Amino acid sequence: MAPRRWKILLLQGANMNYLGKREPALYGTTTAADLDRMMLDYAEERGVDLEIFYTNIEGEALNRIYAAADEGFDGLLMNPAGLQYAGFALRDCLAAVKPTLPYIEVHITHKTIAGGFHSLTAEHCQGFVLGFGIDSYYLGFDGLLRLLNRRARVA
Amino acid sequence: MAPRRWKILLLQGANMNYLGKREPALYGTTTAADLDRMMLDYAEERGVDLEIFYTNIEGEALNRIYAAADEGFDGLLMNPAGLQYAGFALRDCLAAVKPTLPYIEVHITHKTIAGGFHSLTAEHCQGFVLGFGIDSYYLGFDGLLRLLNRRARVA
Amino acid sequence: MAPRRWKILLLQGANMNYLGKREPALYGTTTAADLDRMMLDYAEERGVDLEIFYTNIEGEALNRIYAAADEGFDGLLMNPAGLQYAGFALRDCLAAVKPTLPYIEVHITHKTIAGGFHSLTAEHCQGFVLGFGIDSYYLGFDGLLRLLNRRARVA
Amino acid sequence: MAPRRWKILLLQGANMNYLGKREPALYGTTTAADLDRMMLDYAEERGVDLEIFYTNIEGEALNRIYAAADEGFDGLLMNPAGLQYAGFALRDCLAAVKPTLPYIEVHITHKTIAGGFHSLTAEHCQGFVLGFGIDSYYLGFDGLLRLLNRRARVA
Amino acid sequence: MAPRRWKILLLQGANMNYLGKREPALYGTTTAADLDRMMLDYAEERGVDLEIFYTNIEGEALNRIYAAADEGFDGLLMNPAGLQYAGFALRDCLAAVKPTLPYIEVHITHKTIAGGFHSLTAEHCQGFVLGFGIDSYYLGFDGLLRLLNRRARVA
Amino acid sequence: MAPRRWKILLLQGANMNYLGKREPALYGTTTAADLDRMMLDYAEERGVDLEIFYTNIEGEALNRIYAAADEGFDGLLMNPAGLQYAGFALRDCLAAVKPTLPYIEVHITHKTIAGGFHSLTAEHCQGFVLGFGIDSYYLGFDGLLRLLNRRARVA
Amino acid sequence: MAPRRWKILLLQGANMNYLGKREPALYGTTTAADLDRMMLDYAEERGVDLEIFYTNIEGEALNRIYAAADEGFDGLLMNPAGLQYAGFALRDCLAAVKPTLPYIEVHITHKTIAGGFHSLTAEHCQGFVLGFGIDSYYLGFDGLLRLLNRRARVA
Amino acid sequence: MAPRRWKILLLQGANMNYLGKREPALYGTTTAADLDRMMLDYAEERGVDLEIFYTNIEGEALNRIYAAADEGFDGLLMNPAGLQYAGFALRDCLAAVKPTLPYIEVHITHKTIAGGFHSLTAEHCQGFVLGFGIDSYYLGFDGLLRLLNRRARVA
Amino acid sequence: MAPRRWKILLLQGANMNYLGKREPALYGTTTAADLDRMMLDYAEERGVDLEIFYTNIEGEALNRIYAAADEGFDGLLMNPAGLQYAGFALRDCLAAVKPTLPYIEVHITHKTIAGGFHSLTAEHCQGFVLGFGIDSYYLGFDGLLRLLNRRARVA
Amino acid sequence: MAPRRWKILLLQGANMNYLGKREPALYGTTTAADLDRMMLDYAEERGVDLEIFYTNIEGEALNRIYAAADEGFDGLLMNPAGLQYAGFALRDCLAAVKPTLPYIEVHITHKTIAGGFHSLTAEHCQGFVLGFGIDSYYLGFDGLLRLLNRRARVA
Amino acid sequence: MAPRRWKILLLQGANMNYLGKREPALYGTTTAADLDRMMLDYAEERGVDLEIFYTNIEGEALNRIYAAADEGFDGLLMNPAGLQYAGFALRDCLAAVKPTLPYIEVHITHKTIAGGFHSLTAEHCQGFVLGFGIDSYYLGFDGLLRLLNRRARVA
Amino acid sequence: MAPRRWKILLLQGANMNYLGKREPALYGTTTAADLDRMMLDYAEERGVDLEIFYTNIEGEALNRIYAAADEGFDGLLMNPAGLQYAGFALRDCLAAVKPTLPYIEVHITHKTIAGGFHSLTAEHCQGFVLGFGIDSYYLGFDGLLRLLNRRARVA
Repeated sequence: MAPRRWKILLLQGANMNYLGKREPALYGTTTAADLDRMMLDYAEERGVDLEIFYTNIEGEALNRIYAAADEGFDGLLMNPAGLQYAGFALRDCLAAVKPTLPYIEVHITHKTIAGGFHSLTAEHCQGFVLGFGIDSYYLGFDGLLRLLNRRARVA
Repeated sequence: MAPRRWKILLLQGANMNYLGKREPALYGTTTAADLDRMMLDYAEERGVDLEIFYTNIEGEALNRIYAAADEGFDGLLMNPAGLQYAGFALRDCLAAVKPTLPYIEVHITHKTIAGGFHSLTAEHCQGFVLGFGIDSYYLGFDGLLRLLNRRARVA
Repeated sequence: MAPRRWKILLLQGANMNYLGKREPALYGTTTAADLDRMMLDYAEERGVDLEIFYTNIEGEALNRIYAAADEGFDGLLMNPAGLQYAGFALRDCLAAVKPTLPYIEVHITHKTIAGGFHSLTAEHCQGFVLGFGIDSYYLGFDGLLRLLNRRARVA
Repeated sequence: MAPRRWKILLLQGANMNYLGKREPALYGTTTAADLDRMMLDYAEERGVDLEIFYTNIEGEALNRIYAAADEGFDGLLMNPAGLQYAGFALRDCLAAVKPTLPYIEVHITHKTIAGGFHSLTAEHCQGFVLGFGIDSYYLGFDGLLRLLNRRARVA
Repeated sequence: MAPRRWKILLLQGANMNYLGKREPALYGTTTAADLDRMMLDYAEERGVDLEIFYTNIEGEALNRIYAAADEGFDGLLMNPAGLQYAGFALRDCLAAVKPTLPYIEVHITHKTIAGGFHSLTAEHCQGFVLGFGIDSYYLGFDGLLRLLNRRARVA
Repeated sequence: MAPRRWKILLLQGANMNYLGKREPALYGTTTAADLDRMMLDYAEERGVDLEIFYTNIEGEALNRIYAAADEGFDGLLMNPAGLQYAGFALRDCLAAVKPTLPYIEVHITHKTIAGGFHSLTAEHCQGFVLGFGIDSYYLGFDGLLRLLNRRARVA
Repeated sequence: MAPRRWKILLLQGANMNYLGKREPALYGTTTAADLDRMMLDYAEERGVDLEIFYTNIEGEALNRIYAAADEGFDGLLMNPAGLQYAGFALRDCLAAVKPTLPYIEVHITHKTIAGGFHSLTAEHCQGFVLGFGIDSYYLGFDGLLRLLNRRARVA
Repeated sequence: MAPRRWKILLLQGANMNYLGKREPALYGTTTAADLDRMMLDYAEERGVDLEIFYTNIEGEALNRIYAAADEGFDGLLMNPAGLQYAGFALRDCLAAVKPTLPYIEVHITHKTIAGGFHSLTAEHCQGFVLGFGIDSYYLGFDGLLRLLNRRARVA
Repeated sequence: MAPRRWKILLLQGANMNYLGKREPALYGTTTAADLDRMMLDYAEERGVDLEIFYTNIEGEALNRIYAAADEGFDGLLMNPAGLQYAGFALRDCLAAVKPTLPYIEVHITHKTIAGGFHSLTAEHCQGFVLGFGIDSYYLGFDGLLRLLNRRARVA
Repeated sequence: MAPRRWKILLLQGANMNYLGKREPALYGTTTAADLDRMMLDYAEERGVDLEIFYTNIEGEALNRIYAAADEGFDGLLMNPAGLQYAGFALRDCLAAVKPTLPYIEVHITHKTIAGGFHSLTAEHCQGFVLGFGIDSYYLGFDGLLRLLNRRARVA
Repeated sequence: MAPRRWKILLLQGANMNYLGKREPALYGTTTAADLDRMMLDYAEERGVDLEIFYTNIEGEALNRIYAAADEGFDGLLMNPAGLQYAGFALRDCLAAVKPTLPYIEVHITHKTIAGGFHSLTAEHCQGFVLGFGIDSYYLGFDGLLRLLNRRARVA
Repeated sequence: MAPRRWKILLLQGANMNYLGKREPALYGTTTAADLDRMMLDYAEERGVDLEIFYTNIEGEALNRIYAAADEGFDGLLMNPAGLQYAGFALRDCLAAVKPTLPYIEVHITHKTIAGGFHSLTAEHCQGFVLGFGIDSYYLGFDGLLRLLNRRARVA
């Protein structure tokens, strides 16, 4: 029997649309468009359906995640970015979809854990990757696949 | 003279659209659609115009509440849900409309007062009901009617 | 079969004996005696046995509640008033009787949640009503009946 | 016209019954009985009716103060002693009787303001005297008379 | 010369009267009556006069302890239970009788030191035993005897 | 050579649409429409292009600011109002556009610095004006022009 | 032998020179000059040498107090007023002269203990009087005399 | 009738005498003497009497401000500088003169609101300007004139 | 059948090797060698195998405890002493061996609960004895035997 | 030219030797020996020299890391485990070797970021992986390789 | 070439004028005059120009330090004493003169670091000596010479 | 009689072995070996026996210090370095040996008092030197000699 083809949502939180232009010494010069292409290629090579969604509005993130849970997505990869600090509603949303949509949180830089831990949304993540620059996305993606495949083997 | 027919807005905050599917052991299995029907019937029996509005976006809640104040609504019943934690703008909005739009806050579960009180929006409520499950909506509705009728008798 | 006749204890905490004379601009002019008559009438109309007990001494509240649990009361309605701030022993007592004596907490004014949440005893309540003035007692009573009837239907 | 004869309640809070035996290096060797006689003499010389009440139970203090307010006392002199730390109900009681029963708080030693201020009840006092040993009672008594006489002249 | 027969007061604080019925998974099923009998037997076997006193009212505990100090008791064994959290007056009372009435504090469960230390009264104890279930009483009793006998040998 | 014509965005944060109706004793009776006309006239007299944008949604503010940075605006004048308390994403956005879009923050009342400083967004402002009522906008506008002209002279 | 004639320094801290003009609803309308005359008369009637010194500068207060200690003053009466909040050096100075210059602290209003205790200097006072309006000075003066006379009797 | 000629005091707090030499990368190279000349010219052009006073001693600032209130000054412009952190007495002084001497606070740099708000004195300001470098003084001056003229029109 | 012979590890934490020389007014003059002999005798009389291990190095304590768990020890008696403050790794170790190695914590003096509770390791103890001087070891030993025997009876 | 063969140190902190036996519901049943074999195989397949070192003693970790820096290791992979809470010296050590020994921190479970962030050592990590169970080691290893290879390409 | 003759200011902060009379058990019996003579001799022997300045007024300290910076002093030795707690303006002053006037802070006793670190001024010191009694001045003086000589050798 | 030859232990705490290689911009380029030679020469010239001990393990420091106390050392000079943050056991050890082994603490850089005071071990030091670079060791050594000689003269 052919193996299952996973369907993953990559959600980019507040300010991520400005990637590459925003404090490049900190976040690098890869733009949002570059990153999208890299991730879509990476997913394609591994036979995964990847959808990418950007938003600066917390409530839109909730809407998209609830829709994803209803549309049969298998996992969520998210960089909450600017939504990590006051994203209480997002945190509760991640708790709500936890049973059906495992969540991996990624961060590009070391900032989130420097001088106090800032991520509210991490409370409900299954895995967490931080500080590898753009590679954080690759590692988070790999980690999510490992998790989905392991669960599939058990089930 | 026929008694005044009250016009009430019921506003459902962030994550309430997922009611019934979200942590059912905690929030119960009544869905958002079920709840709407129950509340509309309850209002109808009591001769009250009830309008229900769901949103996951704090700013949309502000827009709806300011509009309600302009459209002559008599009272606001709200479960802020996920907006209770960081809803500072919503809190200021409730202060702004306070003179014309009395506000009753309701919560389904005991969570808001367990381990620290979380509701910012409660600062400007006239009445507060919590922990009765779905009955919290009925009791909050009754309390708002009592308040409107008492004020009408005084005026 | 005739429906069960519920037996409810209404406990009025510290300073409630002075109701009507105490800061009337805040608490209203209804006296303790007025309130008792109103609540007894309300209970009678609904076929409920209501007993009212006032105390300024925390330990007397414990004694009365433990006795109520032994005497087969079905529910407890309480305004802890001045006992809400340091009533740790009362809090533990409410935990102790929780399985047999569901507890509804009521407050007349908005004070308990303004500028920090003060009620220790609310940690073990099943429902919570606040800010409706004397109506808080009616709504708390209604909520307790709803809860008892719902449990009776399930059992 | 003969001047008004003031009626004052002196309330001694928790542990004051043990005065003279309790940490004499700190509180002195004057016993509770000695102090009573001294204060009654002092009041008598000044034409004041003084009643002294000791209690270790916070709620009894409330009961006595509410009764005093009803019995037409003119002022309250109190050393809250062990009730100063968690006497929230007592604090609310003092607020309730404030309009009719001016309250002067006295402390024998410096302890209450050393290393953090401990007196909750002081929130509603009209005057406060601390640290003069047994003389604190004389000064507090004098201050209460000054206050009553000044108000009487104004009225 | 026959050895001195010690006279010990065992004081059971707030909620202890409900032992055996209160959260039995946590506190066990031994009732207050069972415990009394066990401790009286244990004392009898060791030639010790033991008196047991239960109270839910902090001020009654003060009254009993001051009386015990006057009646020549040699030591105090106490489980403050619900009085440990806000028992500031009790704490000052224990300081007052410290020179004549050594105090051993006992707790049945581990709760007092889990998630923050709660016992105010422990500030003036000579010894402290916690977490051994009902055995905490035996060990606390033994520790008090060791202490009294050691002091007797020195004196 | 003709001097450069500056292009400035005035962004009005959450609840500002209700200006004039919202707590007029605190915020004055000038409405949002009045203020717009006043500021557009003031800009016109000084040869400045001014665009005004109102939003109650934090993410919309981010979208508008990023767009302004791309459209060649020279400066940003903003009253964050209700967004100042939890506007972490907005704060990060202001950091992102800092090199190209100098930001001046204005507040009508004294409220932001009374009882604790509330403005998160002020962390990345170049200048800050508060408490002059509607005049705060004029002073903030003047300050932004001074800043732009000074930088232009240096460049 | 003729009784000793006491020599007392009354020190008025920061802002006291403006008494009578400063927030009269709070501090009363008695001016600094009025108060001086009243206190000098009061001292004269009791056979006490009183010297009054005003300063807005903390270091001047230190200079005056050290000089007083060297000039043989018997006691210090002080209203630290604006120096109570950050007067750490003054606090250390009072500790330094403690053995020879007993210090009584007075406050006109209730402000110092409302919403947190503010007086650093009170750490080294022998007695403390607060809230009696201008009468606080009379009571503080009386208390200082009682203290000096008591010590003289013992010595 | 000729318009009123305003009389304004500019008070420069602790360390401002060293302006231009003190951390020039942060505070700029304009010296205190330069600034004085610039402000006096600016005032002269606008027909305002300006007096400038420097002090490193908090109590001298109090003395000067109380004198200004008595000498009929119309307004106070102040950069508290080093006095902002512990200037409690200055804060109380500003409250005392508030009814007759409106106060505008200015700061050269962004430092006061970076990493916690430091200005105690701002509690009683009417307007607040920060971060525009030396321009903060011009904007603060303009704002004070606007305020005085607006009040004059109303009166 | 002969009763089981229990095997117990007594672990003495940092600074215990200096017992008897270290602050003898606080810890007594019994040396580490004295204590060892006393405890070995006490164990021998009760038919218990006791092994005593001293260490000043937290990691060595972990190594010894993990070894004890593997070597079939029945219980652990420990005075963490200097390891109680920052012994997070030790705390996690005690959690790890909890199912097989019940842990009793003992302290000689009252210090651990005076002015804040210091023992991290107590989080995973089954029983806790403090303040009886050297007797704390005897009581802790007795308590551990009671616990082992009770469990043996149940199993 | 043949690519460089990386040399990596895997350091297992306090309590990791007990992996597989320690709270298996939380940490899984893979033992330390299993994990070693899995990681050595994984390294071998990727042509990397891997050395694994376990210690329960913080200072030994410092010794090993300083030695590794001197022996030419290219990177450090570490699960600080029980050393994360109070490992200040380890934190400073990681800062010391930062320029020559990039550090990746891994954690098996979600515990480190649940209820407060605990890892002191993460302050100086280049990358951070958490919550993927044993897979955290694979992902951390991959991330370290990506980092080393990327730096090699740049150099 | 003859070596440079250094010019040093020794500044004695608040309460230092009372040295020898102030709490001699803590600060010793050496008076301010003794100390001056000792330090002047010590400086003379080492060919250093030393000037000593005492003040109880923080602002005078600022005035003296700014003057010293202008008069070409090479270094500052200071015991801030009573100015260390709230000397924010002094702290900013030390930052201002840092490039030209290296600052060594000395304290006689251990008090500054016992129970919390108190010295604000230490933030900008180059060296810090504490607890050696009067010897702290000698050691601080030596340290300043070492620093000046080392810098001279480098320059 | 020939003067006593002092015997001093210099203990170098965690990370000091890496001196010269560790953040040289902060700690300088003098290596541990250089420092040892310099200090041994300095001691030799002054007729002092100096022994130097490095350790990264807190418990080893305890072992060495207790041994030194038994071997008749006269004083302890220590740079706790990485042990200063969580060295509670070391702190208690220093208290234990205080009567026989006076302790001087030295730090190379200013870091320990920047942004909060970090040294736990300083609680029991007799003298403290910080911030003079390598010279801190010379000054600490000199201070210890002064202290030993002064005590010898007194004895």
